[in-house]
Amino acid sequence: MKDIVKGFPKDIRSLIRKAKWTMPTAGLAMGYAQANLVILPEKNAFDFLLFCQRNPKPCPLLEVLEPGIYRTEFLSSNADLRTDLPRYNIYRKGRLEATVKEIKNLWEKDFVSFLLGCSFSFEEAMLRAKIPVRHIEENKNVPMFITNIPCKPAGGFHGPMVVTMRPIPPDKVSRAVQITSRYASVHGAPVHFGDPVKIGIKNLRKPDFGDPVTIKKDEVPVFWACGVTPQAVVMKVKPDLCITHSPGHMFISDLLNEELAAL
Amino acid sequence: MKDIVKGFPKDIRSLIRKAKWTMPTAGLAMGYAQANLVILPEKNAFDFLLFCQRNPKPCPLLEVLEPGIYRTEFLSSNADLRTDLPRYNIYRKGRLEATVKEIKNLWEKDFVSFLLGCSFSFEEAMLRAKIPVRHIEENKNVPMFITNIPCKPAGGFHGPMVVTMRPIPPDKVSRAVQITSRYASVHGAPVHFGDPVKIGIKNLRKPDFGDPVTIKKDEVPVFWACGVTPQAVVMKVKPDLCITHSPGHMFISDLLNEELAAL
Repeated sequence: MKDIVKGFPKDIRSLIRKAKWTMPTAGLAMGYAQANLVILPEKNAFDFLLFCQRNPKPCPLLEVLEPGIYRTEFLSSNADLRTDLPRYNIYRKGRLEATVKEIKNLWEKDFVSFLLGCSFSFEEAMLRAKIPVRHIEENKNVPMFITNIPCKPAGGFHGPMVVTMRPIPPDKVSRAVQITSRYASVHGAPVHFGDPVKIGIKNLRKPDFGDPVTIKKDEVPVFWACGVTPQAVVMKVKPDLCITHSPGHMFISDLLNEELAAL
Repeated sequence: MKDIVKGFPKDIRSLIRKAKWTMPTAGLAMGYAQANLVILPEKNAFDFLLFCQRNPKPCPLLEVLEPGIYRTEFLSSNADLRTDLPRYNIYRKGRLEATVKEIKNLWEKDFVSFLLGCSFSFEEAMLRAKIPVRHIEENKNVPMFITNIPCKPAGGFHGPMVVTMRPIPPDKVSRAVQITSRYASVHGAPVHFGDPVKIGIKNLRKPDFGDPVTIKKDEVPVFWACGVTPQAVVMKVKPDLCITHSPGHMFISDLLNEELAAL
């Protein structure tokens, strides 16, 4: 199974399609962009597209498909969004009903698929620049927190921004800002530095999603907008149906991270 | 009338609202961002929003309003999109039917307004960096050309990209790319350099819109995506109704150009 890590995106997607890989996708197909998935019925699609347009930091759109289309064009040429992610979350009226390995039987002609950028892309660039990425060092999931920063509402969609936190040594904070600024389509520059209470986070040791990580003396907690925001919004807004990736179980695209860097 | 040039956006919009200014808006409220306007009925709104998402260089979205809403929130707090532009183009089935000074009588509850970035913003940054902007030097409208570069289609919308051309001395081309790259929300970096024939332009002396400008010996013609693209698309796709600004007669926002620069 080690070999899959070095595989090309299309080969890994093929294994996932056959349910031969059902685990998180972090570390797979290094160099290639991974994406968050949100699927909504057409009646909610304009409002959610508007929500993403108004909240590009938590919801950076990489690709949106026409109603009923499950094959991507921009992110890959041979993928099937109904089968090519390891795990999907099914939300009905805002409640997580099930986590499943494929959604072929659930697919409807009016489903609109949204693919959003994922911070895996900029973490690779940070590591190349020798900026520590603590949760990778500690082999954990990135800590995520629900903040008191409101997203801009759109139609029926509204809710708080979810952020990820990475502790950064003070002399590397500028470089971390510069590097992530190049990746506007994967959440871009940080949204907050330092005191977590200012954005409504009570305890950095108790993330709302993911795992706590070590913060060393003098390190600055730095916060980036997070692609889990749409799932928090869906739990709050309670549309009849919404299908997403299961956190960490992303869509692996054919696009190089470097292709996502600002032009 | 000279005073208007130095006025604040809200004062200028107020004069425009009273039809006391009906001319092009270039040079007004320097430092503040101006925007292209596209209004479509709700039935076309999702497809056009998707078209903009897929074609961010010609169609960089600054703000999109919910159906029926004519007051902007992000770009200004007291504007009325039905009256605050000096001139509007009314297209019916792709044909320019009329150019009018306000659209209050035409407004319908299902109209969706799209405001797109305008290259006036990056031209100001180019001038500050002593990069020549020829059409400003020659007091002309920027030359615009319909290319053979296809936009990515979305729903019913498709058509060729329209570009603007600015002749740049070779030793300033890199700087022009760097500066305009900072302004992704106003068309960003150029899409083509040099030979116009490569992108389907036969004669730089005969622009499809705007005026021809002098190209000095050794200068490189540099091409940027242009906000007139949606009007070219509407002429081709022929939706029942589409209302736009009249070229050059833009919406003047309260947002500083500097606020549009990449974060």
